[in-house]
Amino acid sequence: LKKKKYSNKKDKMPVFRVKDMDIATGDVRIAILNKKDAQILDLFHLDRLYIKKNNKKTTAILDIAESEKAVPPGSIGLFEETLAAINAKHNDKVEISLAPKPKGLEYIRNKIKGKKLNHNEITTIIKDITKKRLTDVELTSFVIANYIREMSLKEVISTTKAMSATGTILKFKKHPVVDKHCIGGIPGNRTSLIIVPILVAAGASFPKTSSRAITSPAGTADTMEALCPVKLTIPKLKKTIADVGGFIVWGGAMNLAPADDAIIKVENAINITSEGNMIASIMAKKISVSPDYLLIDIPIGKETKIADKETAVKLKRKISRIGKYFGIKVKTMISDGSQPIGRGIGPVLEAKDCLMILKNNPNAPEDLKQKSLKMAGMLLEFCGKAKKGKGKKTAERLLKTGAAYGAMVRIIEAQGGKEITPEQLPKAPLTKKIKAEKTGTIESISNQAIAKIARLAGAPKTKTAGIELLKHKKDKVKKGETLIIIHAKSKDKLQYTLKAFKETNPIKIK
Amino acid sequence: LKKKKYSNKKDKMPVFRVKDMDIATGDVRIAILNKKDAQILDLFHLDRLYIKKNNKKTTAILDIAESEKAVPPGSIGLFEETLAAINAKHNDKVEISLAPKPKGLEYIRNKIKGKKLNHNEITTIIKDITKKRLTDVELTSFVIANYIREMSLKEVISTTKAMSATGTILKFKKHPVVDKHCIGGIPGNRTSLIIVPILVAAGASFPKTSSRAITSPAGTADTMEALCPVKLTIPKLKKTIADVGGFIVWGGAMNLAPADDAIIKVENAINITSEGNMIASIMAKKISVSPDYLLIDIPIGKETKIADKETAVKLKRKISRIGKYFGIKVKTMISDGSQPIGRGIGPVLEAKDCLMILKNNPNAPEDLKQKSLKMAGMLLEFCGKAKKGKGKKTAERLLKTGAAYGAMVRIIEAQGGKEITPEQLPKAPLTKKIKAEKTGTIESISNQAIAKIARLAGAPKTKTAGIELLKHKKDKVKKGETLIIIHAKSKDKLQYTLKAFKETNPIKIK
Repeated sequence: LKKKKYSNKKDKMPVFRVKDMDIATGDVRIAILNKKDAQILDLFHLDRLYIKKNNKKTTAILDIAESEKAVPPGSIGLFEETLAAINAKHNDKVEISLAPKPKGLEYIRNKIKGKKLNHNEITTIIKDITKKRLTDVELTSFVIANYIREMSLKEVISTTKAMSATGTILKFKKHPVVDKHCIGGIPGNRTSLIIVPILVAAGASFPKTSSRAITSPAGTADTMEALCPVKLTIPKLKKTIADVGGFIVWGGAMNLAPADDAIIKVENAINITSEGNMIASIMAKKISVSPDYLLIDIPIGKETKIADKETAVKLKRKISRIGKYFGIKVKTMISDGSQPIGRGIGPVLEAKDCLMILKNNPNAPEDLKQKSLKMAGMLLEFCGKAKKGKGKKTAERLLKTGAAYGAMVRIIEAQGGKEITPEQLPKAPLTKKIKAEKTGTIESISNQAIAKIARLAGAPKTKTAGIELLKHKKDKVKKGETLIIIHAKSKDKLQYTLKAFKETNPIKIK
Repeated sequence: LKKKKYSNKKDKMPVFRVKDMDIATGDVRIAILNKKDAQILDLFHLDRLYIKKNNKKTTAILDIAESEKAVPPGSIGLFEETLAAINAKHNDKVEISLAPKPKGLEYIRNKIKGKKLNHNEITTIIKDITKKRLTDVELTSFVIANYIREMSLKEVISTTKAMSATGTILKFKKHPVVDKHCIGGIPGNRTSLIIVPILVAAGASFPKTSSRAITSPAGTADTMEALCPVKLTIPKLKKTIADVGGFIVWGGAMNLAPADDAIIKVENAINITSEGNMIASIMAKKISVSPDYLLIDIPIGKETKIADKETAVKLKRKISRIGKYFGIKVKTMISDGSQPIGRGIGPVLEAKDCLMILKNNPNAPEDLKQKSLKMAGMLLEFCGKAKKGKGKKTAERLLKTGAAYGAMVRIIEAQGGKEITPEQLPKAPLTKKIKAEKTGTIESISNQAIAKIARLAGAPKTKTAGIELLKHKKDKVKKGETLIIIHAKSKDKLQYTLKAFKETNPIKIK
């Protein structure tokens, strides 16, 4: 082999003509070659290609077109993300070459084979996920391996660090800084909007970052957004804590843990939850606000993430150990997750419940009020703002005197909103009562079906849409009595909702 | 709820206008909705949709378009396979509704969670894979779970049965019926074309179904196709065994184990091999020809599927037990897989090696000849066509007397080919010698790099393309002496090949 002849940089790279595929994945970068070209270049489905136009270069994942109609030989089909990355247009010429696979793949394979991963390896994988460098097959392999092989405490810590490294870490001057988190799955369970103002009224700092709904009818961020803006800049967040002691905002604005979203997407598709990933996901977000004290609510029930007490207790222990590592004191409580909590389900309807509780309205939903008071009490004792055994009493007093409501108004105003009464909240244009078909006792209410129905009514996208749930488990009902009121934006949505109610029969009467 | 009102079949289903996406996946059926429509209908990425046009209905997997350019609200983007399934065209109107997930998904989840699967559950999953009902995420979950949780003998048996159930089972009258299989990865290792005629010459029935190359430069079917047709009908296969005692054909024509291909695709992407899936894949194919005796060659080496002896011995034991269950006597041998075998790599070049061995040409590659004689000897003893300890001698005699060559000619003619001498075989238009850059001893030859180079030269698609490997491990070479000769179809291909040789440096001299 005459070395010189082949080692110069002018090695001809294959050149292809761009076909704009007019598709955006919003995700991975894709390039498509015709089967014949792939064969010639010995390229396979899921290989990575460098695609080069002038001095712009990107990596894309290769898909193979069987038909000449989709991508004819000599052409390369590019998705929008790939086109944008190299500033290419239809009919441009691009050069391609084989790119190495992301480094994290080797570590994923090691995890599959049962090796524990070290900090650098996990950081590499999380970075590959964050940068959207992995295919569905590769990402799924990692998620399933983490689920089956389980993650060691060290691995969970590394994942937490790697995830939180992509975001901002806030530190506040006024201590104690407290925080709470609920391991979701319960519609209407909007305790944060009660607990935060109670703790703030007691003098604690409460920087509450929260999520928007993914598969649920409302996240805490969606509900708070019914009252005021929830996308605040970092300086504004700091000022809000300094001025009023607390905020309830959307964590997404802080760019926390994007790898987390990709992992959860796969977990949702298979309907599994890896304990390690879940803890890392929670803790990465919590670390970002540097709390001294953290209360975690673990509702158990067959339709929540945690099915039984044994799993909850195991989880509790691990979360406490991870918290300790990061210098956060963690308390966990196990609660009943067998049915929705409160009356409203959907952003505005839930916000209404919370305002009614904060305003001591006698018609406020008692279950949500009691759960919130219990949790606020625990946090008050935990962070030293109430004596042992006096937490709930203190919480009740802060609520009854209007101190909590006052704190909530200050938070709303600090975030850019205005005080509003429950009655002034906007309403959905259409409502429809669904009535009991027989007399009896309510035996069960399905969290998942209720969530689905509220979503079909338009929540969380339509803030006023959702459900009012007028009955709970063990309540007696008479035939013809109203069970739920659906709030919808349009007739179409109302129809989908009614159809889903009929199909899922979420409220069982015996 | 007034039941009658909502239970009639005229429930309005959402109607969308078709956008022909002009893409074929050759695989799963895809439909794309704009993000806004998905939100309204509460549909998610990877949900299944029924898509209905008039009385034609199909199921597709949902993808979400972020941009309005790709799929505007009110439209549904359909891939070619989906369009064809319901006979729809651009701008047609279709109705959609949510379809249930395939049943196998629940069992995949059980496998992930550590449950052993029963026969029905495995059959359901294999059927879902065969019918292309699973997404990449779901199929990958199954593959990784099988790899990590491992498959019990019962599970391997069920998988074997489920995979073979999709194909034809052939039974032959003339016993003994013998078969062989090699657990691949070694370029040039084309022993079947020697072993089959030797055993046929000895009076055994040898129905050899084999594969085409997927990631290698030639499968046995590709090599045999250099000599005669390999796609035979079932009646023709039966007649060939009755008339001449053996055949060497492409198994793909018998529609054996399509689920297997899908699983291997995922395993290749992650570069793992599940032992259970591998055994099921081999045995499903073997069962289809009902052999009495089966010899399995397990080459070990760091670039083959089996890295070490311990793994090989474990595998050997399992294969024997599975064989026993299906009434097949199985012998396994462990061989050296550390370098390519024979001279030619690529269909025609390998066929040439085999013909030279069968014709007792003194220039035939000795390593391939010796390995084939050893294996033929083992099979002869195993099936009672040679006395204990006399197998290799018998094989040598059948080769030397020309009996094996005669059998090969009869097989080639029965399959529709004509006798051909090695010299008459077609040649690639271009050849290029690659010479040693220094004097020394060959320390190692990379199977994977050699395979890659032969593929880039055009094998297996271009039958005459590939490599002649003139040196093997431990051979002494002088600077300037030819190491390999590349046979290529075009200058472009020659260039890619030379570039890859330079980059991978597959032959190390010390």
